[in-house]
Formats: sequence, C-alpha cells, structure tokens
Amino acid sequence: MQRIEVALIGAGRMGQVHGPNAARMPGLRLRYVVDPRPEAASAMAEQTGAEVASLEQALADPALGGVLVCSSTDQHLANALQAVEAGKAVFCEKPIDLDLGKALAAQPRFVGARFVLGFNRRYDPHFMALKQRIDAGAVGALESVHIVNHDPAAPSPHFIPTSGGLFKDFTIHDLDMARWMLGEEPVEVFATASCLVDPEIGRLGDVDTARTVLRTASGKLCVISNTRRSGYGYDQRVEAYGSSGMAVAGNVSRDTVHSLDEAGAMAAPIAYAFPQRYAESYRAQIAHFAEVAHGRAQPRTHYADGIAALELAEACQRSVREGRAIRLQENA
Amino acid sequence: MQRIEVALIGAGRMGQVHGPNAARMPGLRLRYVVDPRPEAASAMAEQTGAEVASLEQALADPALGGVLVCSSTDQHLANALQAVEAGKAVFCEKPIDLDLGKALAAQPRFVGARFVLGFNRRYDPHFMALKQRIDAGAVGALESVHIVNHDPAAPSPHFIPTSGGLFKDFTIHDLDMARWMLGEEPVEVFATASCLVDPEIGRLGDVDTARTVLRTASGKLCVISNTRRSGYGYDQRVEAYGSSGMAVAGNVSRDTVHSLDEAGAMAAPIAYAFPQRYAESYRAQIAHFAEVAHGRAQPRTHYADGIAALELAEACQRSVREGRAIRLQENA
Amino acid sequence: MQRIEVALIGAGRMGQVHGPNAARMPGLRLRYVVDPRPEAASAMAEQTGAEVASLEQALADPALGGVLVCSSTDQHLANALQAVEAGKAVFCEKPIDLDLGKALAAQPRFVGARFVLGFNRRYDPHFMALKQRIDAGAVGALESVHIVNHDPAAPSPHFIPTSGGLFKDFTIHDLDMARWMLGEEPVEVFATASCLVDPEIGRLGDVDTARTVLRTASGKLCVISNTRRSGYGYDQRVEAYGSSGMAVAGNVSRDTVHSLDEAGAMAAPIAYAFPQRYAESYRAQIAHFAEVAHGRAQPRTHYADGIAALELAEACQRSVREGRAIRLQENA
Amino acid sequence: MQRIEVALIGAGRMGQVHGPNAARMPGLRLRYVVDPRPEAASAMAEQTGAEVASLEQALADPALGGVLVCSSTDQHLANALQAVEAGKAVFCEKPIDLDLGKALAAQPRFVGARFVLGFNRRYDPHFMALKQRIDAGAVGALESVHIVNHDPAAPSPHFIPTSGGLFKDFTIHDLDMARWMLGEEPVEVFATASCLVDPEIGRLGDVDTARTVLRTASGKLCVISNTRRSGYGYDQRVEAYGSSGMAVAGNVSRDTVHSLDEAGAMAAPIAYAFPQRYAESYRAQIAHFAEVAHGRAQPRTHYADGIAALELAEACQRSVREGRAIRLQENA
Repeated sequence: MQRIEVALIGAGRMGQVHGPNAARMPGLRLRYVVDPRPEAASAMAEQTGAEVASLEQALADPALGGVLVCSSTDQHLANALQAVEAGKAVFCEKPIDLDLGKALAAQPRFVGARFVLGFNRRYDPHFMALKQRIDAGAVGALESVHIVNHDPAAPSPHFIPTSGGLFKDFTIHDLDMARWMLGEEPVEVFATASCLVDPEIGRLGDVDTARTVLRTASGKLCVISNTRRSGYGYDQRVEAYGSSGMAVAGNVSRDTVHSLDEAGAMAAPIAYAFPQRYAESYRAQIAHFAEVAHGRAQPRTHYADGIAALELAEACQRSVREGRAIRLQENA
Repeated sequence: MQRIEVALIGAGRMGQVHGPNAARMPGLRLRYVVDPRPEAASAMAEQTGAEVASLEQALADPALGGVLVCSSTDQHLANALQAVEAGKAVFCEKPIDLDLGKALAAQPRFVGARFVLGFNRRYDPHFMALKQRIDAGAVGALESVHIVNHDPAAPSPHFIPTSGGLFKDFTIHDLDMARWMLGEEPVEVFATASCLVDPEIGRLGDVDTARTVLRTASGKLCVISNTRRSGYGYDQRVEAYGSSGMAVAGNVSRDTVHSLDEAGAMAAPIAYAFPQRYAESYRAQIAHFAEVAHGRAQPRTHYADGIAALELAEACQRSVREGRAIRLQENA
Repeated sequence: MQRIEVALIGAGRMGQVHGPNAARMPGLRLRYVVDPRPEAASAMAEQTGAEVASLEQALADPALGGVLVCSSTDQHLANALQAVEAGKAVFCEKPIDLDLGKALAAQPRFVGARFVLGFNRRYDPHFMALKQRIDAGAVGALESVHIVNHDPAAPSPHFIPTSGGLFKDFTIHDLDMARWMLGEEPVEVFATASCLVDPEIGRLGDVDTARTVLRTASGKLCVISNTRRSGYGYDQRVEAYGSSGMAVAGNVSRDTVHSLDEAGAMAAPIAYAFPQRYAESYRAQIAHFAEVAHGRAQPRTHYADGIAALELAEACQRSVREGRAIRLQENA
Repeated sequence: MQRIEVALIGAGRMGQVHGPNAARMPGLRLRYVVDPRPEAASAMAEQTGAEVASLEQALADPALGGVLVCSSTDQHLANALQAVEAGKAVFCEKPIDLDLGKALAAQPRFVGARFVLGFNRRYDPHFMALKQRIDAGAVGALESVHIVNHDPAAPSPHFIPTSGGLFKDFTIHDLDMARWMLGEEPVEVFATASCLVDPEIGRLGDVDTARTVLRTASGKLCVISNTRRSGYGYDQRVEAYGSSGMAVAGNVSRDTVHSLDEAGAMAAPIAYAFPQRYAESYRAQIAHFAEVAHGRAQPRTHYADGIAALELAEACQRSVREGRAIRLQENA
C-alpha cells in the first residue's frame, strides 16, 4: 500500500496520542516531528522513527502530503492555514480557534481543503453504534438527547486562563455531539453554570459545572451535563429519546468482573480518562484522515463543524451572563 | 392493635389505589366511601367492606379519625379544609390546588394539622434508598441531580384543559423530588418546552415535552426531563452527582429474564405505568398516614411542600413564556 | 365471590407464609388453625381471624372445603392422606415424605384428588417468564439447563438429622425445576458433594455443597449447583441454553440503586432469603390452589411430581455414595 | 531497547494471530517465517517485514533468540523440542501433544527451558482481574468455580478427526483455567457428554456438548460447561464462589449501546469469536514471552501445565466411557 508522508506539529498531550497512531497507520508514514521544545521533538521522533524538523522545512518538502496540527490552541488556526495553503491534507485538533471572529474570517481559505477537525467522539465505536441505531429507527422519531460529559478530575488552575473557558474548551465536544445526534441545528441555547469543584477556577473567572439546554427549530431538545471533576472516572454517555423508545451509549468499564457479598454488588470502575476511553476513536480518526489524505473519503468533521460549535459555545457564555435563552441568529 | 376509622373521598383513579390500601392497613379501618357517583361509591364500598355516605355524614361521625381526599383536583383544597376543620387527620392527593393564591390563602388553616400530602415518590423504596445513600455520603458533597419522569403514553386530550398543564400536573412530582434530593431550596428556574407528542395538546395551549433547570443558592443544579409519552414504559429515574461519586435509582423491570441470541441481548420491559411502578410507595404512604393519624409520626410531606412545588411550577410556566431564568422571589 | 373455607395445619415456618396468604385470598376463607402447640395456633388464629381447632374437628366440618398441610415433614403424608380421604382439596408443602417407598405406596390413594404440591418455584413470575420464553422459542431447541440454588446461611445443625439430607430437603426444589424446564424426564444422575460450610453438618452425616448433573434420554443436560451458605444472599438463578441462544432468570435485587466512585460500581445486595425472594410465588401458589379447590383448574404441581423429585433425590444420594452415574430405572 | 529475534513456525490460524503481535512487540523482532506452504509463508513475511526460511535455517542462525511454535498440533512437540534443544526461548501453542505418553516422555528435556505454553486465557485482563479479586479475598475462602466455554459455531466436521476430540482440543483450556482458579489440583473427574449440535460429529466418534465436574483433595468443586455451538456468540465466563461471596468475569459486549422500547430492553451481542474476545490476551501472552526470552520473567504457563491439563482431559474421556468418576492417580 502506498503511504502518504505526514508531519506532526506539536509533541505535547495530543501529539503523543496522534503521533504514534499516525506512525502505525497503514497508508501514512510519520516523516517529521515539529515542536519548539527540542527534547519533546526528539523523544517523539525517536519513538516513532520520524525526524525532527522545523515547520518550514517540513512544509517545503514536496514529498510531504499531510500535517497533523497538535500545537497549542492559539497556534491551531495559523498552523492549519499554513499547511492548507502549502497544499497539504490537514488534521487539526479542536478547537480551530478561541476567537470566533478570527475563525470566521479564515473560513473561505479552507473551502475545498482536505481538512479533518479533531472532534474525535464522532469516531468512537460506541457513539457511532448509537447514531446508527437512531438512524435505523430504534427510537422512532428522535425528540431529545441527553449528553453527559464529566471529566474525572479538575485541570490545574494554571490551565484555565488560556483554555477559553469551560464552554469553548470542554462543552464544545458536546455541542458538536448534539449537532451530530440531533441531525438538526440548534436555534436557541440556555446555559447555567456554577463553580463547585475548585474556588480557584471561579477566581480566574471560569466555571466548572454547567447545564446547557439546546433547542432546534422543530422543537427537539438537548441537555448537556458538564463537570470538571466527577470523582468516579470519565463519565461519557449519550441518551437519545424518540417517539417509540430510547437508546443509550453507556460507559466503558475497566473490566467485566463483578462480585456479590452481603454488602451488595460490586463492579469495576469506568475508564479513568480520555486516553483509555477514546483510544479507539483516536485511532479511527487518524484512519479517516488517511483516507481523506489519499482522496478516498470526504472529511466527516470539517472546518464548518468547528465554526458551528464555537458559535454555540459563545451563545452558552452569553446565556450564563444574561440569564436568558439566546437565539442563535441574535448571537451572530 | 387499635384501628382509626377513615373515610375515602373519591372512588376514581387514585381512590381505587388508596381505598383498598387503607382497607388492608393494620391501624386503619375504612369506614365510609364518599363519591357523587353512586355506582362508583357502591363498588368501592363493596370491595372494601365500607359503607357509602355523604361527606357531611362521614365528618359528623365522632368515631371517624381520618379522611383520604382523592376527589377531583378542583375539590382537593375544599375537602381537605373541611376535614381538617372537623379535626380529622387528612391524607390529600396532590396537587393541593392549581391556584397558588388560593393555596397560600388557606395555608394558615393547616398549621398544626395532621396532614399528609400525596407526594408518593418520597415513599418509594428505591428513591428512599437513594436518598439514604446520598445522606450517608455515597457521592460526597451533593452537587447536582438529574430527574427523569417520562409517562408511557399521552393522556386523552380532554384531560388537558382541567389538568393545570404539564408543569402543575406532572412536573410537580419532580419539583418536589428535586427539593427533597437537593436538601436545599431552588432559587432560580429555567424551563423550555415543546409539543412533540400530540399536536392536539398544543392546540389546547399545553406542552408535552420539557426540560427544566433548577439552581439553589449554593449553586447546586437540577435538571428535570419530562415527556408525556416515552413509548417504552414509565421511565422513573433519579441520578445524583457529588464531589466523589454518583448514585442512581434506576427503573424497575417487569421480570429478571434476559436472553442472548445472534442479534444481541434482550431483557424485559420496564414497569408500564404508575400502578405497577409505585404500588409499594402508595402502600407505604398510607402506612405513614396511619402513623400520623395515630399521633406516632410527624408528616413527611406536608402542606408547605405542596405550596413550594406549586411556586416552582408557576415559575416554570413563566420561564417558558418569557424565555429566561426566573428568580423565585421575583415570582412571588 | 364465593369463598371456600380452609384449615391450616401447622403454624410454623411455612404455615406463617401460607396462612396469611390464604386469609387474604379472594376465593378462600381461612376457617381453622391446627397446631399441637397451643400458643402458635392462637397467634395465627388471631392474626388471620380464624379459630383454633383439632384436625379431627376441622375435617369433620362439612363446610370445610380445603386443607393446607404445613405440618412437620414427617406428618405431611399422613395429614394429606387424611384430608384427601375426607374429600377436601389439599395443598401440601414439599416433600410429600422422606421415604420414597411410603410415598409410592400411598400414591394410588391420591389419584383424582384436588391436590397441589408446594413446589412454589413453578409459580414464581421470573421462572414462569423464563419458561414462557423457552417455550416461545427464544433459545431455539433447548439443550441444557443450569440451576443455581444457594441458601444464604447454613441451617442450625440440629435441623440436619430430621431434614432428609441436602438432596431430599434442598436439591429437591431444583430436581423439580429441572423436570419442568427440560420438559423431559432425566434418565441418568451424577452427583458429587462436599462438606465445606460447617464441619458439624459432616459429622451428622450430611453434606452442604453439591453439584448434580442430570441427563435425559435425548441427551439434554442439566447442572444443579447447591450450597447451604452463599454469604451473599439467596442466589436463585436458572439458565437455559439452546440451539440458537440462551436465556436466564436472574436474581432479584433489594432496590434499583447503584453508584459509582473511584473504587468502582456498587449496587444493592440480592434478596436475602425465601420469604422476600419468593413472596409472590407463595401468593400465586395459594391462588392456584384456590382455583383447584373451586374446580376451575387442574393442579400444576401434583403428587406425581413429588414422587419423581424424590426418586431423583435418592439417585443423587446413591451417586455420591458409589461415585458413578445412576440410571433411573436401576434406582427404582 | 534491545530486541530478540524470533522465528514464527506456522502461518495458519494461530500464526496469523501471533506473528503480527510479535512483529509489533517492543523487545522482539520477527526475523523468519517458516511454513511448508510457500504462499502462506510469503504472505506473512510480507505483512510483517520478516523473511521466509526453513526451520533448519532459522534455528541455525545464532542471532535467533526465540521461536513461536504455531504449526499443526501433531508438530507442536517435535518443533518445540528442536527449538529448545537449539537453545532458543520457545512459545508453543496448546496442546503440546494429543498423546499424553509422548508428552510425558519428552518432559525431562524441557526442564529449565525458557518455554511458554499458549494457555492464553491466563493472560486475559478480565480473568486476571477475577483471579486478583479472589486472591484478595473478595469471595472469602474459595469453594467452587463454574467455567462456561461455549464456541459460537461448530467447526467443520473434517476438523474433528485430527482435533483430539472435544476434551483435548477445547475443554483443555477450561481444565487449565480450573487449575489456575482453584489454586489446587483436581483429584477426581466426572464428565458426561452428548452430541446435540451436529450428528456428523457423533458419527466421527466425538461429542459436542459436555459437562465436567472436578473435585480437589480439600473438596473444592468445579463445573465446566462446553458446547461447540452457542448460537449467540463466544460465551466465556468464569464464576467463583467462596465462604463470603461470589465473583464473576462476564462476557465482553461488542458495544455499550442499549435501548428500550415497548418490547423490552435490547443490547449489543457479545464478542463473536476468539480473535475479538481474546485479542488483548494474545498480545499480553507474547509480551510475557518477550520478558521470558529476555530472562526477565519466569514462564507463567509451562510445559507441566500442558501435561496436567492433558491428564485431566484423558480422565474426562475415560469418565464418559465408563460412566463414573475417575480418580487422577488411577488414570495415571
């Protein structure tokens, strides 16, 4: 099989997920690692059999066919743009940017690009199975969705100021999930939020616990439940309710053992965090990117999906500030 | 054991639940059945060994110690008041009234009464077990609650005009559940609603699908999910999330049989409707009423709980109309 | 509805289950309580509104239509025979006798009797649902059955000498269940047993832990798993395997609450013992007896079922002694 | 990290599992593929970057450190012996041989060898978690084990004559599992078997459905349930019962989606067959072999385990023939 050579930009948290996946993927060859921190770049290059390069060196290589943008959030848009304009296929971690205006301004330059945005949950086998069951009529006409996204433990407070806040950093996955599952655009958003997990998060102007209600033009409803700290693992569920039934994609347990004694029944904890829970989705997402890079598939998660989720996240923020439901056109 | 004689007012849907329970309850003796429809009164009297009487006859009997108010909603308050002022212990079906003003005006006359309000879910063994686990610290500090209350099938449209609407008729159970589980009063309410089940319900000015978000002074959040028609049975769940874990009271299945074939795993449906799902709660509620009537227990669900739930239901209605969160004091 | 008057013989452990059920059953009226211990008889009579009588007095009453035999095991057969020959409908607790020879000798005298044997598990809604699913083809052609019957805690050793031993006292329920579920008679039995729970049981010549394998003429297999002490509640399950699938009747949990924390998932214990687990089966069994007594139904569990289970229990005992499979005809 | 070069003998069903795992394993390098069928050898060599060789060529290479024996069953012992005597670390698929006498005769030549036998289920994360829970006291003192091993669909009849029969080919995994879980050697075996799945299997002198009961010197009991065709997927469970509780390693579902409609609850099927269900165990087993080959670990599944399981399998066969329990010493 022919392999397309790709460069990894960023060997940090997400680069360490996507780099090895790209290196093992039939159809791709990880050629370059780009990271401003030399030791991070070297470690990843050694682990994957790639070589360290600058972004300019990598993009200048005419044999390079694709780029994985895993840099810090404030670099996503610039890196992606540079790679797209160099004619490369691009995978880009979410969010495309924290500034909706900047993202909208750049949108025309992504038209027609082979560009895959990192909304990995759309590639998760459990959520894909749920979506298939809904589309196959398992719940009748879909009426509402309930999304639970609870992180196991709060991030370090020093992460908060550059994160974009709970809605743009965290809820954004759920806003994309809502659009995918509902199959219809939300036109109204209400959100309410508290700081219950860590007062330091509140002092930094963010929230850590939120409930969001979306509503589509036809009256479908979606609730999103978020917390930065569940205490019990990485709670990732989607429930769908329709005219004749309901369907749920539940949590993944660490093992299948359960036991009984006089105190009751016990079973294993759920998967602790995203590297375990979403390992398969990350692999499938890079496999999809390989197909897109080879020109054999259209992107399933594109730039426009990033824009739509960002608009919803801004509406959430505004709803919290103003204590009212926000109509999407009024937000624009 | 000494038995207190009681009268049943109303031999309709709820009277048919409570009458036989009272007749079988050690500590009570069902003495009279009161119903304006002679044949309904006679059938219940025959089934339970009671005798048919008018309300005046029953209340005039000095041997009568208690009254079960199961009349139509618009008679609840008047019947309850009459019985309380005759010195009887009173069990009253919810809601106490559809008009908050009237209910507030009558409140002083219920002070000190042996009065139990029919919020039966507080007597359900599964929800009581959940509450005990929360109080015992199973989830750490409670932060949020998720209540699912989905009726199996929509009521006949002719029921809608006198029902008080979705929030006062149906959500009211969940508003009481929220107060009980949260252990703190909601101070802010947001609700959004659609008519997805039956367009006739919409033409009559009501809704059939709603999501409600409550918020307490300390920032605890509660989501209530309601639909008039689930299509899959009587979905009755409560989830509680806290600083160190979560706990759920799940649905009751019709039996424990499950099977596997090449198509997958199958199990029994959940309980179809309230008579099956809440049979034990109805029995326990009347047992509690017997204890209250004997002066051996304080009411667990009192008049003030009815008022509080009614205030929240009105706030829900206003939130839907105005598209914004309603602060409770502003509602008053 | 017309009620048939019945007498309860024996106000001990099982009498305390069946007496109140008969007293509450439409179609029956509990008229007499017979027990050699005056205080036990009086307590039951007071609780149920019946009156104390001797067996002779009760049987001499021409208005008496039925008898519930709940005396000690060594009196079952004599009491049942006396009642049947007095023309009464008879419900008799299992086992009919510990001595197969005596039971076989008496069998002709039960021909045509309205006689219901207390194999209550055939009246349990969960096992009935399993049987219905098997009969409806849910597993294809049935090939094997696995029965788990684990008591929560060992009986007092002083019960052992008169119990008949593990197989006649305890496994006998499962031998009947096997016959019912398999729909075919076992022709070969192998059993092996240990004394793991209480060495005193061993010193008294009995065992407390056993595995039994039954085989039918067509090659269907059934395993029975027994222990006198599970440590985790009353484990009562039946699994059925067939040509296209499997089906299980599982345990009943005490409530539906489950929780998650960092240590894992927890849920309620299973039902502790027979009064909780089989409450509904006991009620349904007496309801069936009422139908039989009224002549409206044929007995579902008859004298011949008691004989068949006793023959299998004796084959189990012999298999343990001889370390080999026993053919049923060779046992006879 | 230093890599030990290994040769794969046999590119058939199991070689296709182990070859790619070895090729990807840090610590190993797949150097040679040996298979009498040239095209099978070439395909595997191309897929893994190895080269085709004869067994003699491979063993003659002093740089070769290890051998994976995945040849046909009748070659296992000869290949393993040749590799061990060439000083290589050896992984060998089960069974070591179908002839217990031959296997016993060769046993002295394996003393001290770095030899790992392919009882992969000991490396499965779910069964390892169960074993850890038992060893940590989750069930108290272990008293009995129940092993379910049901294949999804019957093998082609032409496989039967060289398979060694149900007990040596299939039950052998469970006999090893029993020894591992019980932590004590079985001293007595009873087995009964039927031909219910495919009459052709019976005509070829084999059985397809069996129940086996093992007993240890201390009285612990173990039941093994086998069928060649479940109809519902690859049913792989182990239940452990002890003095204070029970613990189960359950089946793995294909996804976490479940749904409810008026007909009941539905969920995904269980894993279809061994490549899906045991993928992780195969990987972990080769990782363990790598550790053994490097001299950093002692084999967890050794030649002696193969002998012990084979002795038990022969006892099962004899028990079926003779209709009685077989003492292990009498079998020897």
